[in-house]
Amino acid sequence: MFENNKITSLLGIKYPIIQGGMVWVSGWKLASAVSNAGGLGVIGAGSMNPALLLEHIEKCKKATCRPFGVNIPLIYKFSNEFIDICIQQQVPVIITSAGNPKIYTEKLKQFGIKVIHVVSSATFAQKAEIAGVDAVVAEGFEAGGHNGREETTTMVLIPSVVKAINIPVIAAGGIATGSQMLAAFALGAEGVQIGTRFIATVESSAHENFKKLIIQGNEGDTMLTLKSLVPTRLFKNKLYKKIEQAEMNGATSEQLKQILNEDENKAKLGIFDGDIENGMLEVGQNISLISNILSAKEVIKEIIKEFLEHGNRLPYLLK
Amino acid sequence: MFENNKITSLLGIKYPIIQGGMVWVSGWKLASAVSNAGGLGVIGAGSMNPALLLEHIEKCKKATCRPFGVNIPLIYKFSNEFIDICIQQQVPVIITSAGNPKIYTEKLKQFGIKVIHVVSSATFAQKAEIAGVDAVVAEGFEAGGHNGREETTTMVLIPSVVKAINIPVIAAGGIATGSQMLAAFALGAEGVQIGTRFIATVESSAHENFKKLIIQGNEGDTMLTLKSLVPTRLFKNKLYKKIEQAEMNGATSEQLKQILNEDENKAKLGIFDGDIENGMLEVGQNISLISNILSAKEVIKEIIKEFLEHGNRLPYLLK
Repeated sequence: MFENNKITSLLGIKYPIIQGGMVWVSGWKLASAVSNAGGLGVIGAGSMNPALLLEHIEKCKKATCRPFGVNIPLIYKFSNEFIDICIQQQVPVIITSAGNPKIYTEKLKQFGIKVIHVVSSATFAQKAEIAGVDAVVAEGFEAGGHNGREETTTMVLIPSVVKAINIPVIAAGGIATGSQMLAAFALGAEGVQIGTRFIATVESSAHENFKKLIIQGNEGDTMLTLKSLVPTRLFKNKLYKKIEQAEMNGATSEQLKQILNEDENKAKLGIFDGDIENGMLEVGQNISLISNILSAKEVIKEIIKEFLEHGNRLPYLLK
Repeated sequence: MFENNKITSLLGIKYPIIQGGMVWVSGWKLASAVSNAGGLGVIGAGSMNPALLLEHIEKCKKATCRPFGVNIPLIYKFSNEFIDICIQQQVPVIITSAGNPKIYTEKLKQFGIKVIHVVSSATFAQKAEIAGVDAVVAEGFEAGGHNGREETTTMVLIPSVVKAINIPVIAAGGIATGSQMLAAFALGAEGVQIGTRFIATVESSAHENFKKLIIQGNEGDTMLTLKSLVPTRLFKNKLYKKIEQAEMNGATSEQLKQILNEDENKAKLGIFDGDIENGMLEVGQNISLISNILSAKEVIKEIIKEFLEHGNRLPYLLK
């Protein structure tokens, strides 16, 4: 299975499933569990400091002998230190996002590290290809957390990116099930990056309250907001409504930042500490399709099973 | 081909491709061309008066002996008259949108007319099923024109709707190519409704200026706007920017309506009369993937060809 697949070959993994690096959710426990199950587990560095990232990398290495990755948002204050730590620790894969892929790609590749960059448009994908990355994650509007300004959905984005570049494309945004993974392949992707589905796993470090919210979530429960800062898809809780009200009243960027930073880190408060009303809950539209908390291994098994079942059923539909 | 398909069986057509009914675009010429090419051509009644609709139905019947449909937005002032005309004229298929499917479904079915309702959520799909419709069109956020409030994309919407109901699902929004049609099938749809791609056809009654704009369009050129009235995806022209500015300044619904109705019908002005700066151009995200004006027949041929090519390539990817 997946012997002809460019992502499994590139990364040395069994299934072309990459677990999205998520703040306060994907530490070494989730990353190593996904890697042990045949996907690419990814440590989300965006909520860590350098010492904590180092600790997670070391623990991840002890917990799995398979390839894993670290996701580094390039606009984050520690990104430079993170790059050095990853090189030092010989992390097999770096996924960069929110920034210019030119800055570190060459350096990382000199150390034999595979580099994947997250993009939200064909134009950004072309820039990433020119910068020399090995593959791109193309992430659509339906994804949780930070999002592109053009609001292009996965259904439109993937064929556009596939047409624009020659390196492999990994689809993200709206992928939580095997049929969605198959749809991504139909659009020309060679792999998928899955975020939200992995929040509701045993190994994710999200608070139980947040996991429960995801499995109970319905359609329309998330919305892209904070468009004047960085467009971000959030669960529509009390904090979201506060943001919405402020925006309707014509709040400035500064006023919005103030709402997000009062006293504490709002993402930690919601995702990690479990205050699901006052915290910032970055999550994708797919919460309406997720109904149980599984181990990372069971998630991958279920997705691959459905992917193959639907894939084998398609030829019948074409007749 | 498509012998096991529920949409081709239901509607008596060759390919499970329905041309979206579009104001000022899909009159009898486009509808009959699509039906003659093996899809379901649809007259968009939303920009007509009863006399004009009757004329288009009569001309369509003369131009094709195959099934065709009429799209009726139920909130439209003439919807009651339209229903009577369609019954009288024995129109084979009615596609209703923007309103309650309970009102006319039973009556239409008594006259042997197939009824399809357009929905933007699984909840609305369940209501349509209970109302007795034969199938639903589930339309995602990436679609042009009127759109759902929950902003659910096709990638998430289709599996949700497929899971929620037992009648066949037709995917819409973000479908212009064969690979996108295949993705819709991977998600569980049994047919597709295609709008934007059919605007850029020889037989569409859109103005040449608008057709040219579509084939030159890039990613990010459309945006969902008018959320305080009816969310509508528009091309970002001068009128769009005027709406955006007004919304940023906290315009009321009345003020927005005024911008849209100054002196003339803004949809007609843009789509039909070709004033692409001051008119309202309802169009989907897929304009970035459309690069030529073809006949409706060539469009269908190209989509089916790519659908089958990608479909036959998938088993290789699964290996």
